[in-house]
Amino acid sequence: MTIRHDTGGKPPAHEADPTKSKHASPDGGVGQSEDVPAREPAQPTARIAREARLASRQLAKTTAEDRARGLARIAEAIRDARADIAAENQRDVAAAEERGLGAAMTDRLRLTPARIDEIAGAVDEVAELPDLVGRIEGEHTRPNGLRVARMRIPLGVVAMIYEARPNVTTDAAALGLKSANAVILRGGREAFSSNQALGRAITAGLASAGLPERAVQVMDTTDRAAMLDLLHQEDSIDLVIPRGGEGLIRFVAENARVPVLKHYKGVCHVYVDAEADLEAALAIAENAKVQRPSVCNAMETLLVHRSVAEAFVPRAAARLRERGVEIRGDETWQRLGGEAVTPAQEDDYPEEFLSLVLAARVVDSYDAAVDHIERYGSDHTESIITENAKTAERFLREVGSSTVMVNASTRFADGGQLGLGAEIGISTTRLHAYGPMGAEGLTTTKFVVRGQGQIRE
Amino acid sequence: MTIRHDTGGKPPAHEADPTKSKHASPDGGVGQSEDVPAREPAQPTARIAREARLASRQLAKTTAEDRARGLARIAEAIRDARADIAAENQRDVAAAEERGLGAAMTDRLRLTPARIDEIAGAVDEVAELPDLVGRIEGEHTRPNGLRVARMRIPLGVVAMIYEARPNVTTDAAALGLKSANAVILRGGREAFSSNQALGRAITAGLASAGLPERAVQVMDTTDRAAMLDLLHQEDSIDLVIPRGGEGLIRFVAENARVPVLKHYKGVCHVYVDAEADLEAALAIAENAKVQRPSVCNAMETLLVHRSVAEAFVPRAAARLRERGVEIRGDETWQRLGGEAVTPAQEDDYPEEFLSLVLAARVVDSYDAAVDHIERYGSDHTESIITENAKTAERFLREVGSSTVMVNASTRFADGGQLGLGAEIGISTTRLHAYGPMGAEGLTTTKFVVRGQGQIRE
Repeated sequence: MTIRHDTGGKPPAHEADPTKSKHASPDGGVGQSEDVPAREPAQPTARIAREARLASRQLAKTTAEDRARGLARIAEAIRDARADIAAENQRDVAAAEERGLGAAMTDRLRLTPARIDEIAGAVDEVAELPDLVGRIEGEHTRPNGLRVARMRIPLGVVAMIYEARPNVTTDAAALGLKSANAVILRGGREAFSSNQALGRAITAGLASAGLPERAVQVMDTTDRAAMLDLLHQEDSIDLVIPRGGEGLIRFVAENARVPVLKHYKGVCHVYVDAEADLEAALAIAENAKVQRPSVCNAMETLLVHRSVAEAFVPRAAARLRERGVEIRGDETWQRLGGEAVTPAQEDDYPEEFLSLVLAARVVDSYDAAVDHIERYGSDHTESIITENAKTAERFLREVGSSTVMVNASTRFADGGQLGLGAEIGISTTRLHAYGPMGAEGLTTTKFVVRGQGQIRE
Repeated sequence: MTIRHDTGGKPPAHEADPTKSKHASPDGGVGQSEDVPAREPAQPTARIAREARLASRQLAKTTAEDRARGLARIAEAIRDARADIAAENQRDVAAAEERGLGAAMTDRLRLTPARIDEIAGAVDEVAELPDLVGRIEGEHTRPNGLRVARMRIPLGVVAMIYEARPNVTTDAAALGLKSANAVILRGGREAFSSNQALGRAITAGLASAGLPERAVQVMDTTDRAAMLDLLHQEDSIDLVIPRGGEGLIRFVAENARVPVLKHYKGVCHVYVDAEADLEAALAIAENAKVQRPSVCNAMETLLVHRSVAEAFVPRAAARLRERGVEIRGDETWQRLGGEAVTPAQEDDYPEEFLSLVLAARVVDSYDAAVDHIERYGSDHTESIITENAKTAERFLREVGSSTVMVNASTRFADGGQLGLGAEIGISTTRLHAYGPMGAEGLTTTKFVVRGQGQIRE
């Protein structure tokens, strides 16, 4: 019995029936169509997880140099496999076009030779990040002479469940290896063939560096039952990170026995304060909304202090309308924004539009803005536009979201932009990691204690 | 309808029927016996959790000085209430004696005036710890001029579920307030009256400092259904920390929708290496086993390298026997340890004895010792005794437990002993915190970003 590839013209795998057996009979269910790449026999999920655990124990004994060499070899192997990756990617793109996935989605899927080189380059960049594993922190000596410190160590085995973009496969593999974690990657159906090709290159790179090949495993199925199995391997997997639509993330959070780091959505706010530089506010509002509206750190709601509404709203409405934004505003926005503004409903405020739609509201005070954010926000990212340093510091201190900003576009809430080197995910709950998470988020610390025979009185 | 006090002569509350309704009818179930302290009407758990959330928002706006004043007032209030606390504690002690709880357990419960002063002193000590909330970490400037840093912030609302010792009530309240978290405390039935009295003093201290009284709530029930309710308040509670027997902890872990930080048990190892100082090894083994055998950081298994077995085992067996320890050893221990040693069974190795019983084994190599620990250990605490610095460093690096030591007693694996100031719990899973956890474990960080109008290209 093997796990079957889910490649037919069906709805995305994460919307398939979760009760569907992963052990499809040879003639049942999804056909093994000829565009499925050749590969060794698929393995049951529990075995994948156990092999990851074994690989993680081997990785824990590697040096920073071993891992850097592994990353360099993986980048090389990706470049060497350019033709294979491009060909497999072409299958995914063709299937996407056939299914009418939409130009934007299809474009995110596409791997040109230049993009493949970028992907390899990103792996090289991860190799150049500072190595965290084994780092000693907070060393101090106790009155009894014990030397106490913390040593940074990997989490162990990290599983990643994601959709669409194939570069997530190599980014997650690279960050995992950098931090000495074994990773299990379960990508989406849209990028299935691309992910398999990238997985082969990663395995080749690991092998050529003398590292355990099972340190990175790209699952060769998008079957939902296999994903459920994965979420139940709490003895072998330390963390699962889902990335994708809210439906996928809720499914993972509700079904996992393994700890989950996640964010459901990004309802990000820009608040234009009474003492804002309105030119800066206009530029930031436009950038936060239109530069890439489909991502979680795009602005969804624009709040404006009443004392600058007359000066700001008409200009903002005109500028955003020019960029194709549909504004759903309160009465003041409707009055001052003209025909660009339609009436906002209560349920527009907690909404993550992920498109050129914007909720807009005028507030009577700084406190009203913070209250709005507390009530409707998702703890992702909020930015205040103000020239008053005291108000700015108050906002940074009082707003509890995972990223808070002054005079900057919400679009900077990203691991790369904030200096983490790369991003493995974003967390909007406060345990373990909060906000964008890079290699450090894949580590923890243990206590190391050096004594000279001390006993406790 | 109110939550009822569970005070009758029944089995401990955490062993009661979890399906039992918390809304006992006035004449049904447990009687409202006259030794239940007077108190305002009890509240449903969901309301307690919501009030904690509101209090946590108020706490987030307090200063370090506000919180230090709160701690000082709580310590004062505890001293002022010495007579009340002692009297209520006397009820618990009397009930414990009546139920035949055992001298050791009853002693852990007892609050003499001196112990009450110690409890108040511990609150004062927490006030003197460095304040973490609002601390800026890792500030740096990006090439585009954005100033990026992390600010340390409270988790929000932390619930603690624990048994027996009433000092946990004040320690948890103090660490919670120090880190600006609201806390909900659900202690065990044995210390019920003591905890209620301490809770009244804490509330009085908060009120006199002008802090939200609901910042610390001591639940006035030990009903298991109310505990289940608490574990389901994932919208209002950010973390639950269970402390007590493995049964209680498993119940919490299996039923909680709120994230849980925990350790099930401490199967701690001491490994006497081929190059150990045997005098130090003898002293450490004795201390780790007998100084306080009932706690999680006591040694449960003693591993000895074969090359020092002849020299070490007879002396260790004699010395431990003298201190009343029952040794369950492998063949070599039986041969060299004489009649002090009985045969070990396979299931002695993963066992947490919590008493004067010790599993013992001779291993052929350093690697065999590490393999044994990996196989049977609980990721709590392990100590190697060796004079070889290279072997020591290898052990510290390679053993993945949350506390690893060289030439020291496992009994030092404790937040206070390791310099955390105080301890709220110990985690043996790697997410968020690993090992002893103090005030820092009750915090996280958010990203704070200061711009001058930056937008993303």
